[in-house]
Amino acid sequence: MAVKPWGGRFGQGTDALVEAYTESVSYDRRLWRQDIAGSRAHARMLAKQGILTGEEADTIVGGLDAVAAEIEAGTFMWQVGLEDVHMNIEARLTELIGPLGGKLHTGRSRNDQVALDFRLYADEALGDWGDCLKGLVEVLVDRAGEHTETLLPGCTHLQPAQPVSLAQHLLAYAAMFKRDFERVADARKRVRVSPLGAAALAGTTYPLDPLYTAEAVGFETAFTNSMDAVSDRDFAAEGLFCASLIMMHLSRLCEEIVMWANPRFGFVALPDAFATGSSIMPQKKNPDVAELMRGKTGRVYGSLVSLLTTLKGLPLAYNRDMQEDKEPFFDADDTVRASLRIMAEMLKVIGFRAERMREALSAGFLNATELADFLAARGLPFREAHHVAGRAVALAESRGIGIEALSLAELQELSPLVDADIFHTLAYETAVARRSARGGTGPTPVAAQLAELRQWLTLP
Amino acid sequence: MAVKPWGGRFGQGTDALVEAYTESVSYDRRLWRQDIAGSRAHARMLAKQGILTGEEADTIVGGLDAVAAEIEAGTFMWQVGLEDVHMNIEARLTELIGPLGGKLHTGRSRNDQVALDFRLYADEALGDWGDCLKGLVEVLVDRAGEHTETLLPGCTHLQPAQPVSLAQHLLAYAAMFKRDFERVADARKRVRVSPLGAAALAGTTYPLDPLYTAEAVGFETAFTNSMDAVSDRDFAAEGLFCASLIMMHLSRLCEEIVMWANPRFGFVALPDAFATGSSIMPQKKNPDVAELMRGKTGRVYGSLVSLLTTLKGLPLAYNRDMQEDKEPFFDADDTVRASLRIMAEMLKVIGFRAERMREALSAGFLNATELADFLAARGLPFREAHHVAGRAVALAESRGIGIEALSLAELQELSPLVDADIFHTLAYETAVARRSARGGTGPTPVAAQLAELRQWLTLP
Amino acid sequence: MAVKPWGGRFGQGTDALVEAYTESVSYDRRLWRQDIAGSRAHARMLAKQGILTGEEADTIVGGLDAVAAEIEAGTFMWQVGLEDVHMNIEARLTELIGPLGGKLHTGRSRNDQVALDFRLYADEALGDWGDCLKGLVEVLVDRAGEHTETLLPGCTHLQPAQPVSLAQHLLAYAAMFKRDFERVADARKRVRVSPLGAAALAGTTYPLDPLYTAEAVGFETAFTNSMDAVSDRDFAAEGLFCASLIMMHLSRLCEEIVMWANPRFGFVALPDAFATGSSIMPQKKNPDVAELMRGKTGRVYGSLVSLLTTLKGLPLAYNRDMQEDKEPFFDADDTVRASLRIMAEMLKVIGFRAERMREALSAGFLNATELADFLAARGLPFREAHHVAGRAVALAESRGIGIEALSLAELQELSPLVDADIFHTLAYETAVARRSARGGTGPTPVAAQLAELRQWLTLP
Amino acid sequence: MAVKPWGGRFGQGTDALVEAYTESVSYDRRLWRQDIAGSRAHARMLAKQGILTGEEADTIVGGLDAVAAEIEAGTFMWQVGLEDVHMNIEARLTELIGPLGGKLHTGRSRNDQVALDFRLYADEALGDWGDCLKGLVEVLVDRAGEHTETLLPGCTHLQPAQPVSLAQHLLAYAAMFKRDFERVADARKRVRVSPLGAAALAGTTYPLDPLYTAEAVGFETAFTNSMDAVSDRDFAAEGLFCASLIMMHLSRLCEEIVMWANPRFGFVALPDAFATGSSIMPQKKNPDVAELMRGKTGRVYGSLVSLLTTLKGLPLAYNRDMQEDKEPFFDADDTVRASLRIMAEMLKVIGFRAERMREALSAGFLNATELADFLAARGLPFREAHHVAGRAVALAESRGIGIEALSLAELQELSPLVDADIFHTLAYETAVARRSARGGTGPTPVAAQLAELRQWLTLP
Repeated sequence: MAVKPWGGRFGQGTDALVEAYTESVSYDRRLWRQDIAGSRAHARMLAKQGILTGEEADTIVGGLDAVAAEIEAGTFMWQVGLEDVHMNIEARLTELIGPLGGKLHTGRSRNDQVALDFRLYADEALGDWGDCLKGLVEVLVDRAGEHTETLLPGCTHLQPAQPVSLAQHLLAYAAMFKRDFERVADARKRVRVSPLGAAALAGTTYPLDPLYTAEAVGFETAFTNSMDAVSDRDFAAEGLFCASLIMMHLSRLCEEIVMWANPRFGFVALPDAFATGSSIMPQKKNPDVAELMRGKTGRVYGSLVSLLTTLKGLPLAYNRDMQEDKEPFFDADDTVRASLRIMAEMLKVIGFRAERMREALSAGFLNATELADFLAARGLPFREAHHVAGRAVALAESRGIGIEALSLAELQELSPLVDADIFHTLAYETAVARRSARGGTGPTPVAAQLAELRQWLTLP
Repeated sequence: MAVKPWGGRFGQGTDALVEAYTESVSYDRRLWRQDIAGSRAHARMLAKQGILTGEEADTIVGGLDAVAAEIEAGTFMWQVGLEDVHMNIEARLTELIGPLGGKLHTGRSRNDQVALDFRLYADEALGDWGDCLKGLVEVLVDRAGEHTETLLPGCTHLQPAQPVSLAQHLLAYAAMFKRDFERVADARKRVRVSPLGAAALAGTTYPLDPLYTAEAVGFETAFTNSMDAVSDRDFAAEGLFCASLIMMHLSRLCEEIVMWANPRFGFVALPDAFATGSSIMPQKKNPDVAELMRGKTGRVYGSLVSLLTTLKGLPLAYNRDMQEDKEPFFDADDTVRASLRIMAEMLKVIGFRAERMREALSAGFLNATELADFLAARGLPFREAHHVAGRAVALAESRGIGIEALSLAELQELSPLVDADIFHTLAYETAVARRSARGGTGPTPVAAQLAELRQWLTLP
Repeated sequence: MAVKPWGGRFGQGTDALVEAYTESVSYDRRLWRQDIAGSRAHARMLAKQGILTGEEADTIVGGLDAVAAEIEAGTFMWQVGLEDVHMNIEARLTELIGPLGGKLHTGRSRNDQVALDFRLYADEALGDWGDCLKGLVEVLVDRAGEHTETLLPGCTHLQPAQPVSLAQHLLAYAAMFKRDFERVADARKRVRVSPLGAAALAGTTYPLDPLYTAEAVGFETAFTNSMDAVSDRDFAAEGLFCASLIMMHLSRLCEEIVMWANPRFGFVALPDAFATGSSIMPQKKNPDVAELMRGKTGRVYGSLVSLLTTLKGLPLAYNRDMQEDKEPFFDADDTVRASLRIMAEMLKVIGFRAERMREALSAGFLNATELADFLAARGLPFREAHHVAGRAVALAESRGIGIEALSLAELQELSPLVDADIFHTLAYETAVARRSARGGTGPTPVAAQLAELRQWLTLP
Repeated sequence: MAVKPWGGRFGQGTDALVEAYTESVSYDRRLWRQDIAGSRAHARMLAKQGILTGEEADTIVGGLDAVAAEIEAGTFMWQVGLEDVHMNIEARLTELIGPLGGKLHTGRSRNDQVALDFRLYADEALGDWGDCLKGLVEVLVDRAGEHTETLLPGCTHLQPAQPVSLAQHLLAYAAMFKRDFERVADARKRVRVSPLGAAALAGTTYPLDPLYTAEAVGFETAFTNSMDAVSDRDFAAEGLFCASLIMMHLSRLCEEIVMWANPRFGFVALPDAFATGSSIMPQKKNPDVAELMRGKTGRVYGSLVSLLTTLKGLPLAYNRDMQEDKEPFFDADDTVRASLRIMAEMLKVIGFRAERMREALSAGFLNATELADFLAARGLPFREAHHVAGRAVALAESRGIGIEALSLAELQELSPLVDADIFHTLAYETAVARRSARGGTGPTPVAAQLAELRQWLTLP
């Protein structure tokens, strides 16, 4: 077991059970790049402030580069006895460059160091989520562009309500993921704040320049209060909330894919790469990927609850409870990145079966509202028009046909206001086309959405 | 029981059990102002677009004003049989102005109507949370301004670590609540989007102008996709997340108040208005308000989980599950508003007991780091200096005194590098003053924080 | 404002904001029956132990009866200033019977009193959940009994897998709700423990007999440790967990009802009393009740999270945070009772459309496994048999027919092992009947399940 | 990449991204012992039923033993391409014993197989939790036995309320963990139900004997409904709930340890093995283990939420979402086992500082209730006695002494009912001893608790 840095006052060693319970290097070594980047910036700042000489800083940065090279190459020996990524790297640095390595820690504590590393990681993660979200929106826009004339039942209460274009349906998801992008971008503002210089909790006696360090790691600003700086994990909770909404949106899309893959719907043909078969039932093609993604929503919600629970009621400033901040974040990060990428890939190649969608339109009486509107336009109070249309549905249902297949005479028997123009009105394309105001399912507003999203996708 | 608007096709009535289960007017009537504001805007837009005449719109708006007056006056008869706030108001409007009342619903559905009302409510709620947060920060700044020279043990791991000023401690909370303000402001951008014009799910066949309606209700923009517009409750979930972090921050402050009120600490004297006694134990003064507020964190977390769970896996577009969106939001809104206000009032009058804080400094060896720094500054490697300071702590502890009460000779026996200057170094004021870089606990950075926050509080 | 019982030492009154924040009588008056029952038992025990005279106890019990009568009659004046149900009842009792009323509190504290009341309430609630669960199982058994020969596609991954009887499908839910019953019964054992006698936290100096009080309220036993007795809310959390699983099971059933009500499935005809229409779309019949019940799952999960969060990290013994225990429980109780009752009523009258289920069997190639088994039984290794069956599915799918509609020649071309017996094998009834081992979908094991459940339902 | 068992019908391979997303062998190989145990039982049952010959079963069991030996020895080659633990073991078995290996799967599906394996794992886990809980109770009983005469302030609202013995305080936790033991034992009844024989979802056409298999794996009974059997994960959720309450109880104890370790309390001396120091602050001894354990409560709550969320709204029967069931359970299992063991070890050696506890008694006016009781016993109405005692507290507080240090004259000035007997009454030992009814803090009921718990610990 390695000697603990604080071992001086303690009579006996930490036993093995406790060591395994308290170590974090098994998962926080994932922060090695961030740790080295933060240390580089800290060394440069120390030199700028005259706390280290330029030569000392160069040696330290050179040593950090060497450590990074070892980790990249897989030759670095991680030691659980050194507890965490920070001590592992510092210990190796000191082996490589001698006692000067210890000077790197001047004016710094593990408390502000770990907060910086985690923020750097979260910043990269949220940046990547943003890229993945854009990538998914791009696929949705592309597929929507192909299906502006593919019509299907738009549902409320999972009951066929009004015909919509598949484009409009897909663009509803594009709107969700674009909103996620914007939420992630807002959250990132609160991630990109450097805590370095807060030291253990009270600031440091060295003449540090926290804003310089912040800039050196690529952040816009630095902490304003040292006690907040070392005990703030809001950024991680906010990231987990963004992740939860992303997964919630994906779960909705997955639910539809799973349902649409059922032969009763048959609205989608699953690409082989995203489905699996059964070892017993030869006819099956299971939407496993969509199911699993839907299931992983629970995993990310759980991570959010985990961190919120951990943070509840903690006094100032740093408490060891906070070590429990990283694993839920890492796990959610993996899940979000993989899920967004896989959904984009799956949507690229998923088959939409327009003929099955059209069958469903007719069987679902999706033009009943049009009939009511037609009558209302001819002067019947809407509530009465609605009543007549309801009777038309009942008649068509009893005959096993769509409303549009009723004869003119039959329709006129329900209301004398009907004339032959009704058949144009009952055509699903007409119903869709008439919804032409902003945001509606008509070709015009759909084209506007596509144009707006394509413009947005070109933004940096 | 009132006649249902969609009753035409159904043979039998909804029974009483189901009516009680599905009604929402018992809680959504809280949205009546928003419902009337939305209807006014819709009527004006219909007139502008020539769908209603100006006179019709005037009559409708007049009728809505009359309904509003009745509700304000408490004379409005709410009917559970009319299910929700929307039907109650529409029914009364039609009683007052006749069949024209029904025309108000032109190009609108309960789906977009309820989404608008809820957004208007959430916008006001979040606006008020922002005001409350500013109010609380103002109190924290005021009390911090009084206590820039009051010192207490700054803790990590709830162990005394380094002396900090009470100002710095309080300003850590100011930093949290300012961050909450900014998060709430960001969330509001996603609330302030009008869904009106999305109708049931597909848009409407009337030539509506959703942007005009949005402006009329005071929002910056309108929906872009009708299916998203009626099924999006992200704004409510985001509001609940903001509320959760606010409560988490309050729970941390409450934890400290509860602990500081225990006589072993005795750092605070609870104002009578915010404490209660015991019917059995005469010596007690219980920090009930702080405890209860800490407990209510669970309530708000629960509301967040509730909505996230409800939204998981819902297919497009509106589903009745979403009716479960409002109660958790209303409950969290009540909790957040009351908690922030009460905390501000409590902090205004809470007594901070500086002498008890100073006793704790000495007994907690809060200047041990200073001793180590002193030795390090004189050339001892920091790890060794740390070791010497640890021995000084052990010696002082065995004698039941603070390090500063050890004699020069005793200190010199621990390290020959010590001289008489050490006693200046060991003074707690010195320790605090030396932490003078940005964000630290020294008087200079504390003054800077105060100035920055006071400036921020003057912003509109 | 009423005078607080502990007001002696405090200089100023609790202000209105705080009073509203801390009062509980607005919701805990729901405990009035339990409070009076607990007080009756306490008074009897005091008399038995000689702490009160028999006459005193009689007078107190008479006074409590009078209070109960007032509350029943709606003439009782609840006062928020008296904070909670306990003080309201005690104050009124003292008005009615004079200072003797105060003696009722001998050897008791609000801490053990509230714990007892809440336990009595929870016991009744869980008892009623048990009854509701049995009622629902009974309906499931009845409907299953009607549909032992109705076949539908059994799904895994929401893909048609193997034919099952509707009875088997419904009995899967009966198994869940029976398990819920057993879990609730186990939880009740931990509810039915009287805390009375623990007093504030340390027990009391009066010679109480807690076991007598326990028996008098109908519980089997009393607390063993006073500090645990006043701070234990595990029973409420366990109740909320049971409620969460009940709602989870209901959400699964609701999901199927919602999906089956979609015309693409059309497996159920919703009774009018449990569906609603649309004010715009005449063809719609929305499964609102099932949707709302599914949505309420979030509400109950949220209540569980709420209480777990509140309890986390609380030191011994009673803390005011715990006041937040009752509202989530009451809310979940209302939700569970109503949901179970409504589901039972809905299932009684829901229409199952056997012909639509059968259509789905054929279109879903639900006999593909049978073909594979047939070939395996004739000696083909199963993995090969599976492959041949897969080719049969592809052929039938390309022809738009079921496997059973392929000709013998076509089938023999896929494998020479096929002969005319295959058509018996491919019949769905055959497939179902062959699954005759314990728990399978065949008529024999289904009959066994029905018999076992009917037997269970007769148990007390 | 390995050939998928269901690959026949699919044109293209599952790509790498999806393979990594959907594989489970990286974590479910933890189930290898259970998988082999289940397979052994299944093989024996197949032989007993005449589906395999005895010789075939022997060969299979021998092969399984060989596979087990390889895994034990670390020589088994796990392949991600084979997806899960079940396929990995089956594939290796077939390599070892030839095509006969495939016959093991007769009448079994991965759906019932995975459910069995998971149940076997959960059963062992819950059994171990029970052992750990007993171990922890044993330590609490031992330490309580040492401290029946150590007195400390019993708190409510974290305010000193009444003196209690440290034994009583520790036994409150013993009561919690004993209750956890009983809850876990009840949950296990619902774990120990074999699903084998349910096959994919509908049962199997082979004449299996599920009860025989259940007995062979050591379970009391088998499933009653095949669709429930493959889709039931209630047992895992119930296990996670039990784990959540265990962690909640631990979090309460940890909170107290953390607070008591603060020098203002100083009630405990942390053993070195369970604390850490600071690399900067030499005086610190941080209760890291207690903090971390308190923090891990969030982790386990999160796992519960995760699984409940995943299960919400899933239609029958097996869905791939359910693959997300195991990781939260495994993680909670690791956390619970380690936390219970470490807490037991920590409590064995933690130092309780009786003198600091006694100081706190006096400074907290812990005998104020006794004074009120004394006066009440002499005929003063309790509310008035309470008032007098409040004035005594105020007087003593203003003098900086305990009530017992006031003079007889001073006390008599507050009430003429006081006489010299009061000093016996005010002694803390008297206060504790007087609470002698069942469950109280007096020596008699504490001894009874100790005896009862020691008896319980001897139960098998």
